[in-house]
Amino acid sequence: MSQNHRYVGRSLPRLDGPAKVTGRARYAGDLSLPGMLHGKLLRSPVPHARIVNIDVSRAAALPGVKAVITGRDTPGIKYGNWRLMPETQDETPLAIDKVRFIGDEVAAVAALDLDTAEEAVRLIRVEYEELPAVFDVAAALADGAPLVHDEGKLTSNVSLDRKIDYGDLDAAFAAADYVREDRFTLPPVSHAYLEPCACLAEADLEGRITIWTSTQTPYIVQCLLASTLGLRENDVRVVKPFVGGGFGGKMELRPWEFCAAFLARKTGRPVRFALTREEELATGRRRHPMRIRSKVAFRKDGTLLGKEFEVYLDGGAYNSMGPTATFLCGNFGAMLYRYPAYRYRGYHVYTNNPPAGAMRGFGAPQALFAAESQMNIAAAELGIDPIELRLKNAMVEGDEIPGVATVSSCGFVESLEQVAAMTGWKEKKGKLPPGQGIGVGCYSFISGGVFNWFNTQYEFAAVEVEAYDDGTLHLKTMASDIGQGCDTVLRQILAEETGVSIERIRLTAGDTGATPKADLGTWGSRVTLMAGNAVINAVRSIKDQLAGVIAARFDLNVIHEVAFADDRVFAKARPDRGLSFGEAVRMATRANRGRALVGRAGYTPRNKGLVTPAFSFGAQVAEVRVDVETGVVRVEKVTTAHDCGTVVNPMAVEGQLEGSIHMGLGYALCEELKMEGGRTLTSSLLDYKIAAAEDMPPSESICVPTFEAEGPFGAKEAGEGLASPTAPAIADAVHDATGFRAFDLPITPEKILRGMGRLDE
Amino acid sequence: MSQNHRYVGRSLPRLDGPAKVTGRARYAGDLSLPGMLHGKLLRSPVPHARIVNIDVSRAAALPGVKAVITGRDTPGIKYGNWRLMPETQDETPLAIDKVRFIGDEVAAVAALDLDTAEEAVRLIRVEYEELPAVFDVAAALADGAPLVHDEGKLTSNVSLDRKIDYGDLDAAFAAADYVREDRFTLPPVSHAYLEPCACLAEADLEGRITIWTSTQTPYIVQCLLASTLGLRENDVRVVKPFVGGGFGGKMELRPWEFCAAFLARKTGRPVRFALTREEELATGRRRHPMRIRSKVAFRKDGTLLGKEFEVYLDGGAYNSMGPTATFLCGNFGAMLYRYPAYRYRGYHVYTNNPPAGAMRGFGAPQALFAAESQMNIAAAELGIDPIELRLKNAMVEGDEIPGVATVSSCGFVESLEQVAAMTGWKEKKGKLPPGQGIGVGCYSFISGGVFNWFNTQYEFAAVEVEAYDDGTLHLKTMASDIGQGCDTVLRQILAEETGVSIERIRLTAGDTGATPKADLGTWGSRVTLMAGNAVINAVRSIKDQLAGVIAARFDLNVIHEVAFADDRVFAKARPDRGLSFGEAVRMATRANRGRALVGRAGYTPRNKGLVTPAFSFGAQVAEVRVDVETGVVRVEKVTTAHDCGTVVNPMAVEGQLEGSIHMGLGYALCEELKMEGGRTLTSSLLDYKIAAAEDMPPSESICVPTFEAEGPFGAKEAGEGLASPTAPAIADAVHDATGFRAFDLPITPEKILRGMGRLDE
Repeated sequence: MSQNHRYVGRSLPRLDGPAKVTGRARYAGDLSLPGMLHGKLLRSPVPHARIVNIDVSRAAALPGVKAVITGRDTPGIKYGNWRLMPETQDETPLAIDKVRFIGDEVAAVAALDLDTAEEAVRLIRVEYEELPAVFDVAAALADGAPLVHDEGKLTSNVSLDRKIDYGDLDAAFAAADYVREDRFTLPPVSHAYLEPCACLAEADLEGRITIWTSTQTPYIVQCLLASTLGLRENDVRVVKPFVGGGFGGKMELRPWEFCAAFLARKTGRPVRFALTREEELATGRRRHPMRIRSKVAFRKDGTLLGKEFEVYLDGGAYNSMGPTATFLCGNFGAMLYRYPAYRYRGYHVYTNNPPAGAMRGFGAPQALFAAESQMNIAAAELGIDPIELRLKNAMVEGDEIPGVATVSSCGFVESLEQVAAMTGWKEKKGKLPPGQGIGVGCYSFISGGVFNWFNTQYEFAAVEVEAYDDGTLHLKTMASDIGQGCDTVLRQILAEETGVSIERIRLTAGDTGATPKADLGTWGSRVTLMAGNAVINAVRSIKDQLAGVIAARFDLNVIHEVAFADDRVFAKARPDRGLSFGEAVRMATRANRGRALVGRAGYTPRNKGLVTPAFSFGAQVAEVRVDVETGVVRVEKVTTAHDCGTVVNPMAVEGQLEGSIHMGLGYALCEELKMEGGRTLTSSLLDYKIAAAEDMPPSESICVPTFEAEGPFGAKEAGEGLASPTAPAIADAVHDATGFRAFDLPITPEKILRGMGRLDE
Repeated sequence: MSQNHRYVGRSLPRLDGPAKVTGRARYAGDLSLPGMLHGKLLRSPVPHARIVNIDVSRAAALPGVKAVITGRDTPGIKYGNWRLMPETQDETPLAIDKVRFIGDEVAAVAALDLDTAEEAVRLIRVEYEELPAVFDVAAALADGAPLVHDEGKLTSNVSLDRKIDYGDLDAAFAAADYVREDRFTLPPVSHAYLEPCACLAEADLEGRITIWTSTQTPYIVQCLLASTLGLRENDVRVVKPFVGGGFGGKMELRPWEFCAAFLARKTGRPVRFALTREEELATGRRRHPMRIRSKVAFRKDGTLLGKEFEVYLDGGAYNSMGPTATFLCGNFGAMLYRYPAYRYRGYHVYTNNPPAGAMRGFGAPQALFAAESQMNIAAAELGIDPIELRLKNAMVEGDEIPGVATVSSCGFVESLEQVAAMTGWKEKKGKLPPGQGIGVGCYSFISGGVFNWFNTQYEFAAVEVEAYDDGTLHLKTMASDIGQGCDTVLRQILAEETGVSIERIRLTAGDTGATPKADLGTWGSRVTLMAGNAVINAVRSIKDQLAGVIAARFDLNVIHEVAFADDRVFAKARPDRGLSFGEAVRMATRANRGRALVGRAGYTPRNKGLVTPAFSFGAQVAEVRVDVETGVVRVEKVTTAHDCGTVVNPMAVEGQLEGSIHMGLGYALCEELKMEGGRTLTSSLLDYKIAAAEDMPPSESICVPTFEAEGPFGAKEAGEGLASPTAPAIADAVHDATGFRAFDLPITPEKILRGMGRLDE
């Protein structure tokens, strides 16, 4: 980070903060239009059944009901985010012949008010022919297991697999001094975003749809909504209002979006759907439950020789984003350290559970809980300090992610060293009194994905910038702030690049009808790097023109560099030779004979392999105190050193870190969607335990300085990667405190006490 | 018009028609936002006074009132559309020290509901010190007349004048065989648009304003609202929703727009203002009342030698668009015919009447009533058929508008010949039984103005077109459909130019935050020609790219012409060598490595003089039957032959013509804002008489074929010019029927009877 930066590196409060804290921000559920109808979904009460008959007559006859639809009324077009592999597109907005999980959408109602809609849903009679169901990976893979999807070419419940074979793993195991194999089990957990999903759709009389929806991916919703409605892509406009969190749970087309649009066309009136918290928890997407077998080989000096990593993902009833998690787990299993040989087998398995999808980390929290826990186990068994063991094998710049990419900037070693120094690691590890413990977990993460599973024809991010003679800029981008702060960060980048004060930048974002094509959305920590690069690319032509008018106006020698700072454009070597930014724009507009100054460009990662243009790294240490009588864990401190490249907004990165620690804490200690026969039992926030404010530990952190050449001003991802280290660090600390090593999450008091032998089986 | 056109020349129903006739179209007054307040204005009850004191305490204390503002609370910045001449900017949104007409805005209230706002307005106590007032031009120009504006440099109530001296007029009069001088008086009339003005403003927490307002000129409102609020231009976003007519009455910043925005910033809540019909009629802008003296010289063979034209405009209390009317009257006075010598004196005079502004025709209905009536008088006195007299002097292509411009396409002679033939003119004129009459009136009009009184730095019109691989286009323009049909016409032009079906074109229009900078608005019949040209210019680069991919894909010889038709792009000589439009776009997008296909361009008339890039022409004949006992006139038929260049949409042109006849009929026979001491007496549609549907005569019309080289596909203005010929044609027909020649409007039964000597004075 340069000392000369005015905005990049500055802790700037979120520009959207005041609207949010004063309640003026309008979320999808706050929107209404004249004549609006209220929508409600009927969901399957059974996990697996053929639909024999649906009788909507009583519902349709209820006064105030304007329309009732079932899957048979719709085009029945399958969709899914993996357009690149159409055979993975396995979902219809409403079930047609079969339901596959408890909560599967069967019918939808639009009525004058919500009470009537709910009453109408209760009046729909569905005759089901129940089918045998499978609720875990083992049952789903057993011989003779019922097929969740029997309509296609699949002959088992494995919908997709991925293999990586890198190096000579057999030789590695043969040469190893120490081999360790473990099995880990990860539970389903919920995104638990503050804002349950909602949308409002309106059809115009030419048949075009506008939908305001709580989404991370307006462009994806546009494309898939159009295809399921049988419309042309650009006859659908998706607008993202304020969004109260997504964490991966809002990056697909969702049935209520389809139903709102379909019902708006059918009734000629706007239709709004808003999910209840119970619907969210009981039927919504969730982080993949996984069963992981990991076998690792070391020399006795701690040198890693190789690893075998086998993952079974319980995908639930549909693929959702499972293919991505299946792919990425293969990478996450072999990140952070140098693996001369690596074998990965990932299996995405259908069950009759509610579908799992993307959730903060996209497979990393599960894979890294396994990998980092195993690293801690190995360190103990090899008699090497776990941080030393990591340092010995830590990736550095130029290392290869097995078979797929090369690491560019890498501050992992520094992160390990710093976190050890910050915590007094060497003085504490293994040396704390009983009931106290310290543990470590690390992560590496992507700065957006390269592999184009959505098969977009557009650049991955696109930006338009317009410059005005009042010294302001208008930044238009489809990039979507869902709470992570990109509306602020992209303005910081533009302000830095142009020297225009940030308050002079108007932003229009996340609207497929008003912002440039396209942006793949907010996921995989992709926005700062990708949209940030697009900002810089977009403004280049404007800067060239402004430099030109300054050079012409002040008769500058061609070698003069023109600077952009403090709302001025001037000769760098002769600051007096310049104009205000607005005056320069006016000159350029005049020179253009009145054409407005507009720059438009995009960013697509090229020559960066197939995973990501840049990797982040970090190490985290958790310190815990365990009540050995009750098994209750109190996390006393979390210390983080991480490498996110240039820090664009330290306050925002800190906010991301705190949110990650909160989610990691829950993942480690209390969060779990409890399932029984395909039914989610924890369907309220009373039953589904997330960490409360009082549970949050003090946090200390530093960002180690690196510069990512592929990132804007050297920046790369910050935040999503941090969702992974907390759980293995806490697990390691609990082990340090109690001797109990957790192989499955969450680490409940009951498990600790049982692990300590203090609870009878 | 080419036979090959698929859209240009086709009678296409308005694309916005279904939304309007089903009531789904949302106008500004239909909009609401959560927490919205209702605004109401306090208006001056006196025509001219100093404001001694305003006590808002009781109003502010009324429960439900959120804010009360007076001029003293505001920045008090003067505004006006004539930014090029800042001294003409004479209005503040709320009166500061003085009120100048009955209805002048003094204070504004924002309250939880309209009743409360109205009650609060009644509770405001204003102490006025009344001043002497002037209510007509004569009084305003009398020695010792009170100055309506005494705050600046003016020493009389003439706020602005214009002179034209062309040729040797004294010599013309000296050489003339026949000289005729007449005086005409034109009354104030109302636009009487269907939708009274309304707006809704919202301030965001960064201080930016978004305002949805019933306007013809979003860009002008943006600029002037920003300047009066003390904001940067681009911190204001103006969105035009559906608009129910404007006719010139909605092309300025209006006090309620300022107050809505100011109050939204002050209260932090959205604020809506909606005018009542009474406010519109009693205090709103109106067509300028004028006193015109015209002196014309002929040879006895009917050859025009010259003309002196003197116009006094009663501008009311502020300049409004009066300067434009003052300028244009000078041109309208000398259009249609070849005047070897011409002298014009125009005076814009302040009075204490409500301000006059732009109204359909922009001075032409007044000037042409005088000029055409005088032509009919002269024809009678010279013993020449009035159409023959016109043909003898009619302008043709290449003629000069005195001193300012050259006429390009011109179908005036054909219009005269055709209208004579269609009506059997020669058999009827002067030969009908008593009580029946036939008369003629003609017009020429501008296709938008060249003189840049708003002093914009942008092109006069701008368009962005984006092409998508689903075979659709997105057309973005600030051009504003206010009911005249440009949303349809611009899509027709784009469809014709690209070969893309019109239903595949999405349109975003009239939004300063989402459409390209800039467009001067909807007035002066400028949109089809200017925005239409911008459409063609904008799509050129896209067509070039698509032609390129077709040439590359099909290995076309460089001389091949690539055609765009029927949603395909193909080699014109080998139609099989081509792709669908969408496929071609996809290839081009791929060739661009994912950059979307966007074209952006504008149009500004250059090298066309200072008036307009193109003139329209037409002749109209009215046939009437006058009840000589009651003086009641029934117009039995109106026949029109006119030249609007290529007719883009015949049905839309016919609609414009019918609307023009309706307004012309009212201007001729019944419409008048009756004034008394500065008070408008006709403040409801019961008192202010507009023609009813049953009064409308049958209409027959033809468009004479011309091709305007400066216009898109040869098109030029249609509609506004047609507002002028009806009144002189009816007046001439009444004369033919009764012998009574009207020199002032409206031609009431009383005037006819008095003119026929059938009513005692």
